[in-house]
Amino acid sequence: MAGTGVFAEVLDGEVYKYYADGEWRASASGKTVAIVNPTTRQTQYRVQACTQEEVNKVMEAAKVAQKAWARTPLWKRAELLHKAAAILKEHKTPIAECLVKEIAKPAKDAVSEVVRSGDLVSYTAEEGVRILGEGKLLVSDSFPGNERNKYCLSSKVPLGVVLAIPPFNYPVNLAVSKIGPALIAGNALVLKPPTQGAVAALHMVHCFHLAGFPKGLIGCVTGKGSEIGDFLTMHPGVNCISFTGGDTGIAISKKAGMVPLQMELGGKDACIVLEDADLDLVAANIVKGGFSYSGQRCTAVKVVLIMEAVADAVVEKVNAKLGKLTVGTPEDNSDITPVVTESSANFIEGLVIDAKEKGATFCQEYKREGNLIWPLLLDHVRPDMRIAWEEPFGPVLPVIRINSVEEGIHHCNASNFGLQGCVFTRDINKAIMISDAMESGTVQINSAPARGPDHFPFQGLKDSGIGSQGITNSINMMTKVKSTVINLPSPSYTMG
Amino acid sequence: MAGTGVFAEVLDGEVYKYYADGEWRASASGKTVAIVNPTTRQTQYRVQACTQEEVNKVMEAAKVAQKAWARTPLWKRAELLHKAAAILKEHKTPIAECLVKEIAKPAKDAVSEVVRSGDLVSYTAEEGVRILGEGKLLVSDSFPGNERNKYCLSSKVPLGVVLAIPPFNYPVNLAVSKIGPALIAGNALVLKPPTQGAVAALHMVHCFHLAGFPKGLIGCVTGKGSEIGDFLTMHPGVNCISFTGGDTGIAISKKAGMVPLQMELGGKDACIVLEDADLDLVAANIVKGGFSYSGQRCTAVKVVLIMEAVADAVVEKVNAKLGKLTVGTPEDNSDITPVVTESSANFIEGLVIDAKEKGATFCQEYKREGNLIWPLLLDHVRPDMRIAWEEPFGPVLPVIRINSVEEGIHHCNASNFGLQGCVFTRDINKAIMISDAMESGTVQINSAPARGPDHFPFQGLKDSGIGSQGITNSINMMTKVKSTVINLPSPSYTMG
Amino acid sequence: MAGTGVFAEVLDGEVYKYYADGEWRASASGKTVAIVNPTTRQTQYRVQACTQEEVNKVMEAAKVAQKAWARTPLWKRAELLHKAAAILKEHKTPIAECLVKEIAKPAKDAVSEVVRSGDLVSYTAEEGVRILGEGKLLVSDSFPGNERNKYCLSSKVPLGVVLAIPPFNYPVNLAVSKIGPALIAGNALVLKPPTQGAVAALHMVHCFHLAGFPKGLIGCVTGKGSEIGDFLTMHPGVNCISFTGGDTGIAISKKAGMVPLQMELGGKDACIVLEDADLDLVAANIVKGGFSYSGQRCTAVKVVLIMEAVADAVVEKVNAKLGKLTVGTPEDNSDITPVVTESSANFIEGLVIDAKEKGATFCQEYKREGNLIWPLLLDHVRPDMRIAWEEPFGPVLPVIRINSVEEGIHHCNASNFGLQGCVFTRDINKAIMISDAMESGTVQINSAPARGPDHFPFQGLKDSGIGSQGITNSINMMTKVKSTVINLPSPSYTMG
Amino acid sequence: MAGTGVFAEVLDGEVYKYYADGEWRASASGKTVAIVNPTTRQTQYRVQACTQEEVNKVMEAAKVAQKAWARTPLWKRAELLHKAAAILKEHKTPIAECLVKEIAKPAKDAVSEVVRSGDLVSYTAEEGVRILGEGKLLVSDSFPGNERNKYCLSSKVPLGVVLAIPPFNYPVNLAVSKIGPALIAGNALVLKPPTQGAVAALHMVHCFHLAGFPKGLIGCVTGKGSEIGDFLTMHPGVNCISFTGGDTGIAISKKAGMVPLQMELGGKDACIVLEDADLDLVAANIVKGGFSYSGQRCTAVKVVLIMEAVADAVVEKVNAKLGKLTVGTPEDNSDITPVVTESSANFIEGLVIDAKEKGATFCQEYKREGNLIWPLLLDHVRPDMRIAWEEPFGPVLPVIRINSVEEGIHHCNASNFGLQGCVFTRDINKAIMISDAMESGTVQINSAPARGPDHFPFQGLKDSGIGSQGITNSINMMTKVKSTVINLPSPSYTMG
Repeated sequence: MAGTGVFAEVLDGEVYKYYADGEWRASASGKTVAIVNPTTRQTQYRVQACTQEEVNKVMEAAKVAQKAWARTPLWKRAELLHKAAAILKEHKTPIAECLVKEIAKPAKDAVSEVVRSGDLVSYTAEEGVRILGEGKLLVSDSFPGNERNKYCLSSKVPLGVVLAIPPFNYPVNLAVSKIGPALIAGNALVLKPPTQGAVAALHMVHCFHLAGFPKGLIGCVTGKGSEIGDFLTMHPGVNCISFTGGDTGIAISKKAGMVPLQMELGGKDACIVLEDADLDLVAANIVKGGFSYSGQRCTAVKVVLIMEAVADAVVEKVNAKLGKLTVGTPEDNSDITPVVTESSANFIEGLVIDAKEKGATFCQEYKREGNLIWPLLLDHVRPDMRIAWEEPFGPVLPVIRINSVEEGIHHCNASNFGLQGCVFTRDINKAIMISDAMESGTVQINSAPARGPDHFPFQGLKDSGIGSQGITNSINMMTKVKSTVINLPSPSYTMG
Repeated sequence: MAGTGVFAEVLDGEVYKYYADGEWRASASGKTVAIVNPTTRQTQYRVQACTQEEVNKVMEAAKVAQKAWARTPLWKRAELLHKAAAILKEHKTPIAECLVKEIAKPAKDAVSEVVRSGDLVSYTAEEGVRILGEGKLLVSDSFPGNERNKYCLSSKVPLGVVLAIPPFNYPVNLAVSKIGPALIAGNALVLKPPTQGAVAALHMVHCFHLAGFPKGLIGCVTGKGSEIGDFLTMHPGVNCISFTGGDTGIAISKKAGMVPLQMELGGKDACIVLEDADLDLVAANIVKGGFSYSGQRCTAVKVVLIMEAVADAVVEKVNAKLGKLTVGTPEDNSDITPVVTESSANFIEGLVIDAKEKGATFCQEYKREGNLIWPLLLDHVRPDMRIAWEEPFGPVLPVIRINSVEEGIHHCNASNFGLQGCVFTRDINKAIMISDAMESGTVQINSAPARGPDHFPFQGLKDSGIGSQGITNSINMMTKVKSTVINLPSPSYTMG
Repeated sequence: MAGTGVFAEVLDGEVYKYYADGEWRASASGKTVAIVNPTTRQTQYRVQACTQEEVNKVMEAAKVAQKAWARTPLWKRAELLHKAAAILKEHKTPIAECLVKEIAKPAKDAVSEVVRSGDLVSYTAEEGVRILGEGKLLVSDSFPGNERNKYCLSSKVPLGVVLAIPPFNYPVNLAVSKIGPALIAGNALVLKPPTQGAVAALHMVHCFHLAGFPKGLIGCVTGKGSEIGDFLTMHPGVNCISFTGGDTGIAISKKAGMVPLQMELGGKDACIVLEDADLDLVAANIVKGGFSYSGQRCTAVKVVLIMEAVADAVVEKVNAKLGKLTVGTPEDNSDITPVVTESSANFIEGLVIDAKEKGATFCQEYKREGNLIWPLLLDHVRPDMRIAWEEPFGPVLPVIRINSVEEGIHHCNASNFGLQGCVFTRDINKAIMISDAMESGTVQINSAPARGPDHFPFQGLKDSGIGSQGITNSINMMTKVKSTVINLPSPSYTMG
Repeated sequence: MAGTGVFAEVLDGEVYKYYADGEWRASASGKTVAIVNPTTRQTQYRVQACTQEEVNKVMEAAKVAQKAWARTPLWKRAELLHKAAAILKEHKTPIAECLVKEIAKPAKDAVSEVVRSGDLVSYTAEEGVRILGEGKLLVSDSFPGNERNKYCLSSKVPLGVVLAIPPFNYPVNLAVSKIGPALIAGNALVLKPPTQGAVAALHMVHCFHLAGFPKGLIGCVTGKGSEIGDFLTMHPGVNCISFTGGDTGIAISKKAGMVPLQMELGGKDACIVLEDADLDLVAANIVKGGFSYSGQRCTAVKVVLIMEAVADAVVEKVNAKLGKLTVGTPEDNSDITPVVTESSANFIEGLVIDAKEKGATFCQEYKREGNLIWPLLLDHVRPDMRIAWEEPFGPVLPVIRINSVEEGIHHCNASNFGLQGCVFTRDINKAIMISDAMESGTVQINSAPARGPDHFPFQGLKDSGIGSQGITNSINMMTKVKSTVINLPSPSYTMG
């Protein structure tokens, strides 16, 4: 159970501690932040409201620890990450429990998130050994006018301290997808978990603690955004920010100094359906892509753009499947569970009502109880409705009927988002050419958008973000280049 | 005109000279080899019959020149290649004339071959600058148990002397596709051109001579296979053999010592046609793929495997197109021209007669005059006919009707060849999965097999060859790895 | 001569025009900006003071042109760049003349800058063809739990519109090092040249115009920083900023939104000299590294950290060489020429006086006439002097005597800059280990810092910048990743 | 103990079985091969003398199993290899025991070999996941004249059946360095272990068996070279030969057909010592490099080329260290143990006597008892002595005094071998330039030659071999390239 067994030291009475300098501490602020269970709408957990002073200390410790860590053999770094991964998977049950209580993630999915996170950490360790262990050797005589008297040894070195800010929907997985790359690359890591999901994240951090990473290398602070949010992102000790979330990311980008940014923000992933598509495959993917975890996924299908000729058939198939979804609590593994906060539920409701007023067809009755919203397909949505462009992050999905492929591509590209998209067609030429034309970071042919498998590149274009993720790209992003040039007194060519 | 103008020095009376130590020479043998014009069946040109002693001298000169060439800046090597490319393109007319007379290549195609060869040489130069100019820097602490006290600087260095043996059908292009990579990588190059095409090749070599490459770096010997064939391929001075041709390649492989081999031998490229294919596209590609240069191409379509349901339609469309092909002399730019030798024509005829006797349907009347064979589609070919498996290298193409995709894949994979193949279907899943299943070096989806564009990988599997070609792969193949390891007295990690 | 011949259309009476939508235009502002000749201290040229409205139009045209340019074959993009490079080199004389008049660059160096720029553009073209032409193919079954049913095709695509802001010291070379990569990668490019150097830059842009790039793809605006500076860097149409210059870069980083930044800012490149160094080599490199172009180079040697035991000897050798430097006008190819502006000269003087007051030893008499400052070596500089840490960007160089290697490394790493550094020693172990320890983007062993050869990585750490330059890295930096994932209905493995 | 516990099933009475189709079998030949313990000179073990028929069956099973294995997800292949590695390390004791008895390897080194082998297999698994999981995506418009209508998906696919023939000196490690790469790349593997070391190899194979690899994928045959040697290397079912050993490799190369060869043959690794070298470091490396495992290592120092000025000092230091080496049985962890066979001891003696007769100075008395030869340094060796050029593979080391660096390089390059070499100097310029000049696959600066760490490239030039090894290079070598080209009906450019 959360906060017990090996996790007992994370808990201080009823409040979870923060992690600094290799130990769990209570904040000197004496204040706490409450975490409300989305299902019960009662306070479930409490975490420390850290002070700026405490943030400073975490940053200083990170800076010091990083210098030594950067001098640790790559295989030893990997060994510790493998150990952390194993501990994480071993303790999947209590961590998953937190996910159920904090973010109403269906119990089985919560367990999957933890297990997948362990796999990600291990894969990252091995990938990093290779990326950091191999540099380039360049010679001067490639460039006109030069003899070969300069040998340039160029390699990837750590950035320093990486600030990781994951979102509520995958507080463990989207944390380790930043922590793993940062650490294997020789960086220190300061984590600011989301409020919902903070306790799961603290448990995850404890698995790294148990693995035996050096003191200070990893820090984890909790608290109010108003107190430590900007303070963290503008902190001079931060050498890289990896953020996943919403519009806040754009604000961070504008305030942050000259540090590399990895931002994965919102999306409005389009699903373009052509006449020749496998309609059962389409329906299955729309339901899975649009309603898994109640639509609270960056890469959820967020608008369906479907050729008129097959629209009725697909809508019918989707509705049949929606009718079979279970709606209820995460503990029961319901397909649809309460959305993360009341304000989120209110926002979703706003989009739904706007669409209703402007004439969208509701395929199901709109129904809400507290944070729980029943799955809803909105047909005949038109571009003047907010839901055609905004991201509900809930179990409501608009369908726009189109009369040409170009119309679909145009709608997709008119969005200020560009995370992922998908196209369903059997035709190889159309598949490739539509994918090429869609201005999204990734286009899935004949499947719903998805972040994984975790070694694939993953990037949002336009307002959806900056930088590419995926294990390999994240490690690269968390390094910088350094070169040593050996200058010889006269040309020398390698003979074999 | 061939042998005149800047090319005058290549000619000695009526005999073309060979190239050694930076100059054009007559052989001490006093003997010559006649080159018969496939169209007129008269001797067109004569080349030197070099002696083993002359081969030895070319080899020795190459070895010496290579050591200095390997110490020449990459950009200077590239500069000379660019110059050779420009000279080659400038003199496309006389060189193309040789191709017309020696191998009966249609005049326009002959010019294209020369121009494309110039482009290839330039592209190769720039590619090589990059491949040779960039090595790897590896550190020791990637591997368990090691600290970072060893820095390994690994780079690509030349092999030494490369022996290039191109075939008759592209005596210029398939020569420069070996010469370019060899030279930019810092190797010396000895060329043994095919008998048919030798004079075109000698002209091409002269363009390199005019560009100003160092004496001895390039050598070109002509002569009888029985005298200098094995002598060359088993020569201890040879450090790499790049051969394109037929079965001889397998024999060379068995005789050659411990040297890297790049072999591109025969093929029996299959064209699998599914029911949903664009049948006009199919027919156009069968005619182009099967009958261009009278089928004398490694990557010609050599067997059509077509689903019964669309077989009649495709055969009809192909026949309509075949009826429009012109048959005649290369000087007239006929589509179909005489095959390269009488023995080749006899071999083709043997396959045709065998198929006839075993019951194949002839879509056209079989017609031959001298080396000129009229285009012929053989329908209802069955696996017991030789033409189902053997490579005619002529304008005759067998069609096998299949009842399932698996049957087509099975026929394709039962071949001892594995050069290329193609599949025509609109279906993205079938396209990828059939391509994956076909055991050929390359599978073209919805187009006939093709060697180019020249930077794409190009390789034959099974008896079709060893090693991958294409500009990048050829350069890599013509290098070896050398490493320098700097051992430090104590660990040192690069800080940034 | 500048503004004549093919460049006549760049000039409007006495004012140079700006470049928009494929043509040269006068600003509607009616205002101009004067460019003062550093030598004569008189106005030499005038350029347009563009309005925000004009900037908007340039941005819009760039956005439109980019979409078509991104659909232009790579080889065609390269062909245009090769053409621009050739035109640039052909017109080196008038462009070099501008450099002499605007930034007082010695005449020969001015010509070299233009020629080297042409080489850079050509190299960039070929490099970009390769970087943009090759993506990755990833399969899903690398990651635990997955079958091979997903093929991910990932490639590099253009960012959109790149804003290039080069500095005064290499207004042509540091412009094309941004323009070349931007264009070959498929981006549009908006150039804001420095005031000093603007006219040289406009001439250079005209060479691209003459090469025939599409209308609108390249824009070049001139004007006052107060009017269009922030307006440009915060413009929503900008998708990437590549800036070389001083502290302004940090301010730009903080204001800029979520766009990739390539920043190359100041440096305080240290030269560490050990006892076993070749002292003649050291002296030659200190003079060349510290005083070329009067020290106005990012990678100038800006502080010498020398072991006490050899300090006297080196100082003596350096002084002997300084005594031979010519001081005067750029037209005369003087070694030392006037610094770029009066305010720059005043700043340098401030550093010199501070050092004097705090007890530094002046190896030469301090002498200044207008913007012309005589070369000065300051010995016995101590950490309490400003010149120990600040960047003079002039012909004055501090020497700090050290008693251990660690002291030298410590001084180097205590700087907030981290551009380059160098170490002089014959000892292989010390060379590598000191290079590893110095927190600079590049460390030169036994040579002065240098940006080139231009294909080497070039990057500043800490306040010296973000992102890596060099041709290859710049092209990569000006792209983003896009992926297409082909999802198959069942696993498929490629067979060979 | 060998042949007991989990290894019991490998043993059939007193004879070790061979491994075919997933099970341990006795040969139908009824014959066995005796393995003589080098220390006792008594028969220690017996293995099966397999028949050609049995080889055929192993080959057929391998071919069938390979097709299914090539369709196994990469992570599953890796998982099995990790399992095998763990089992191998778990059973290090009995396997090391075999090494002690079969090849007289000192007990501790024998254990190290097994442990290092486990690490190698694990590292290989992860490396292979990456190499096989990532291909290239190429577009057609890189090459002049092409639009972007062709997407080439190129990846690495298995070769088929790999034949692995390791040598006696590392029968486990040099077997797994072939097995690991072969298997992760999707190949089947047939192992022919050396006679001395066969039983250790059989135990190692059993660890793979226990890990659960598919039936038939791995085969291991033992027997007489005269019966199955050529039969194996010329077998049509073999798609790749990876051989480590002596001259036999050249013979194999000449007989083998058109299959990729990875050959690591003999060496005569030179150690060049300059005047400025750290002489204690030199002496320590000469003793370690020349006498470890009694000199029976490919990368042993086999000739010392030392500047006259420091020769006396180094010889003295080496002699002092040689005097401290223990000579005796491997069970006692003696430094010097009996060489592998009597014929080997005789060959070594022949070289020693030849040197004696021609006037070499013996720094120690030559002493031999059975296969045990006392360590011997031969000073003042001259080029007319056999030991200056031939490889003793025993604890006797020639010293040649040189008067210039060039003389040392010349001797090194005059050898027909080119495996590794080393140079001892403190001077960075000399170190790099001498390394560049030595025609050896690897040059170690300031350390003795060494194969590891195992991820570094490792290759012999000239008669020392073909192909590069090291984990990464071996995996690459055991794959071939296959391409799929998607041809679109009109150009399509990826937009982002």
